[in-house]
Amino acid sequence: MVFSVILAGGTGNRMGHTDKPKQFLTIKDKPIIIHTIEKFLSQPEFEKIIVLSPAMWIEHTKRIIAKTIGACDKIVVIEGGNTRNETIMNSIAYIEDNYGLDDDTIIVTHDSVRPFVTHRIIKENIDAAMKYGACDTVIPATDTIVESIDGNIISDIPNRNNMYQGQTPQSFKAKNLRDIYLSLSDTERDILTDAAKILVMKGQHVHLVNGETYNIKITYPYDLKIAKSLLEEECND
Amino acid sequence: MVFSVILAGGTGNRMGHTDKPKQFLTIKDKPIIIHTIEKFLSQPEFEKIIVLSPAMWIEHTKRIIAKTIGACDKIVVIEGGNTRNETIMNSIAYIEDNYGLDDDTIIVTHDSVRPFVTHRIIKENIDAAMKYGACDTVIPATDTIVESIDGNIISDIPNRNNMYQGQTPQSFKAKNLRDIYLSLSDTERDILTDAAKILVMKGQHVHLVNGETYNIKITYPYDLKIAKSLLEEECND
Repeated sequence: MVFSVILAGGTGNRMGHTDKPKQFLTIKDKPIIIHTIEKFLSQPEFEKIIVLSPAMWIEHTKRIIAKTIGACDKIVVIEGGNTRNETIMNSIAYIEDNYGLDDDTIIVTHDSVRPFVTHRIIKENIDAAMKYGACDTVIPATDTIVESIDGNIISDIPNRNNMYQGQTPQSFKAKNLRDIYLSLSDTERDILTDAAKILVMKGQHVHLVNGETYNIKITYPYDLKIAKSLLEEECND
Repeated sequence: MVFSVILAGGTGNRMGHTDKPKQFLTIKDKPIIIHTIEKFLSQPEFEKIIVLSPAMWIEHTKRIIAKTIGACDKIVVIEGGNTRNETIMNSIAYIEDNYGLDDDTIIVTHDSVRPFVTHRIIKENIDAAMKYGACDTVIPATDTIVESIDGNIISDIPNRNNMYQGQTPQSFKAKNLRDIYLSLSDTERDILTDAAKILVMKGQHVHLVNGETYNIKITYPYDLKIAKSLLEEECND
């Protein structure tokens, strides 16, 4: 079974003074998160689309889904965790409680604020997760990547040909991801801002899936402006 | 003395089927390269603005400068080299031939296709190059950075807090940069796609200057669309 896991746990404090988390901002007549959910809804492989939200926004999320998509028992909204990875673990616990978990249960985790994901990307994620166990959506780095340990002086400029910018989805065999996460120490968990890194730091293979330049994450007001112009041109597959 | 070095040597083959290199595409009634040159022209510190162009586009570049900016002896257009670093070396040779070169001669090198650079960024580049000898304009990485040596499997996900996306300007004490470049082997030169790396690989300090998210490089048609919407809103300082 394959599940879509939509991560909407962010509190959105990088968007400046808006009254709502950024997934609820409207582009082209709909909240961003609805555009995102619709991409997964039109893909037949998913057993369920699990939306993870901060507790105080669960009812609002349910309401806008009902209003824009209508009654749909394929979508469920549950509470996220304190961190990105804890939120993913909540989705796995939900799956285990309601469907059981076997070695081949797949989760396709995706940022609620990346509405431009394509069906091709989602399909390749499902296929790669089934075949290899884990995958990450990336694009080749367009900028030179610079490393600075102290924030003042460059410590390294790695070979650009080896560098990629991570997007989502990130897809995993859920049971394996959880088992490895549970085996980590608190110190190890604290440094993990990325789910794929859970596996990478334990030496497991995570395969690459090609993303798209326009599969952007709407984080700053600047991104929202770009997103609006992208949506006007329907830059989808 | 401080010189602006505008790098317009690219052949633009990533822009798809356009008849001209991308620096000549028009946004808001002017070629992109003119927007860029004007940012440096309005900054009094520069002795000269040296534009480096492929041989076959030198006359065209001169013509559009004459047409949009008018007669201006502060700007000179000369031929670039085969690589980015060879092009920078051509600018240093021009400075040496015409003005002489001392230890404090500064070059502020900038992509001709980054028209959204600000006066604040340029000023901080001049100051940092004078004070420290070299600087690079960067923004904190917004995406997770992923390393893959083979292009199939993730080899590392470095700590995002240490990762930056390189922009331009990159500014240097010209004589030091040239002397170090001349000391490199052909093999070392071949792997250098970035001027700051010339110094980094020899253990010299390159300081960071804060860029701006919107200081984008116009590389793909997607960028051109964003650039047009940014220019409409005059997202400058």
